[in-house]
Amino acid sequence: MLIAKVVGSVVSTQKDEKLQNAKFLVCQVHDHNNQPKDQYVIAVDSVGAGEGDMVLTAAGSSARQTTLTKDKPCDAVIMGIVDSWDLGGANVYEKWND
Amino acid sequence: MLIAKVVGSVVSTQKDEKLQNAKFLVCQVHDHNNQPKDQYVIAVDSVGAGEGDMVLTAAGSSARQTTLTKDKPCDAVIMGIVDSWDLGGANVYEKWND
Amino acid sequence: MLIAKVVGSVVSTQKDEKLQNAKFLVCQVHDHNNQPKDQYVIAVDSVGAGEGDMVLTAAGSSARQTTLTKDKPCDAVIMGIVDSWDLGGANVYEKWND
Amino acid sequence: MLIAKVVGSVVSTQKDEKLQNAKFLVCQVHDHNNQPKDQYVIAVDSVGAGEGDMVLTAAGSSARQTTLTKDKPCDAVIMGIVDSWDLGGANVYEKWND
Amino acid sequence: MLIAKVVGSVVSTQKDEKLQNAKFLVCQVHDHNNQPKDQYVIAVDSVGAGEGDMVLTAAGSSARQTTLTKDKPCDAVIMGIVDSWDLGGANVYEKWND
Repeated sequence: MLIAKVVGSVVSTQKDEKLQNAKFLVCQVHDHNNQPKDQYVIAVDSVGAGEGDMVLTAAGSSARQTTLTKDKPCDAVIMGIVDSWDLGGANVYEKWND
Repeated sequence: MLIAKVVGSVVSTQKDEKLQNAKFLVCQVHDHNNQPKDQYVIAVDSVGAGEGDMVLTAAGSSARQTTLTKDKPCDAVIMGIVDSWDLGGANVYEKWND
Repeated sequence: MLIAKVVGSVVSTQKDEKLQNAKFLVCQVHDHNNQPKDQYVIAVDSVGAGEGDMVLTAAGSSARQTTLTKDKPCDAVIMGIVDSWDLGGANVYEKWND
Repeated sequence: MLIAKVVGSVVSTQKDEKLQNAKFLVCQVHDHNNQPKDQYVIAVDSVGAGEGDMVLTAAGSSARQTTLTKDKPCDAVIMGIVDSWDLGGANVYEKWND
Repeated sequence: MLIAKVVGSVVSTQKDEKLQNAKFLVCQVHDHNNQPKDQYVIAVDSVGAGEGDMVLTAAGSSARQTTLTKDKPCDAVIMGIVDSWDLGGANVYEKWND
């Protein structure tokens, strides 16, 4: 999984019928020190994430293992909202301080 | 998924029999700020996309989850045409202004 | 899929038994402007491609969706020979002019 | 597989229900000379790894082949703890000297 | 597939039970001109490869299509030992001259 920040959303009316109810979020990948990387992914939200949230994204066939994305042409899913993480015992990110 | 712009098409007569009716489009990947990246993908179109459209592409096994691409040797599919997207509440791309 | 040029071939006698009849071709990836990239892939040929041909390659599990590669430990396949492609209406590559 | 060092952990309360018991570890990828790379992955631990351990991570659908991760939206798993490795007969890493 | 040179091996005692008999080899990726790249993969050996051998590696779900790796959390496999390869008709590598 990658850590990413939800920074926007995409509107697509003309899309595969299986994805009619999918919400596409623009996720900017962050490194483990919480610095934004020059990498993004458009992921389907399966956990109620919103703009500004730090999230975990899963890619490839693993992105189809949620109830919402099963058997759908979707290669990236938000499967968790990050509360916090630490490195070497030191807190790097804490949602409630954000 | 990635955001890409349809910039061309590929003709292939001698190809896997399962792909006889597939339309191969040249898709240039854009970043989330709508800047073209030095990255492209040849994707099968499943939604009626045309040159100049901004689209969403899905890769890997997820590219075989549309009716058109099921069980076919295809690793990238256009599964949505982008109407618009925004970042931090500001519109980045709007199809009708293009 | 990626566009690549067949530039060579690999001989492997001691290999997985399922791949005994596979032909491994060295494919140099080209960008959409037909410039060679510093990237190559060894792909199994499923369409009768030969050295000098521009081809389409599919990767990952999609590479196992041809009759020749089904259920085999093969992660890249040539599934089409490129006749031509264009960008913005202008021809970039034409096999018969090559 | 990649060699990585477990450098931290991620807390996520709101996540896919299938992952309720998963432990997410921050793994910094190392090269084969044991130098840290500018690449990390968040992996589910399936072998009892802890901070400071050098581990092997598997990605993609292969990350779902452990008892813990089967059919779950997880694209990276720690499937081994590294005791040691060598290059050209010379020891590069030895857990007990760490 | 990629061409790689077997340069070492990894010992892992505490690992997924399905991989108890797997041999993990450190494979340094080479380009098609036989120059080593700054990229490596730890692959399970399925063909009796040894240090110094040039091999073909398959990644992702394709790495689970050998008898040895079926249904195991393994994302890279050595599925062939390279005897030789050529580019443009000229020999680049020949095992017996190595």
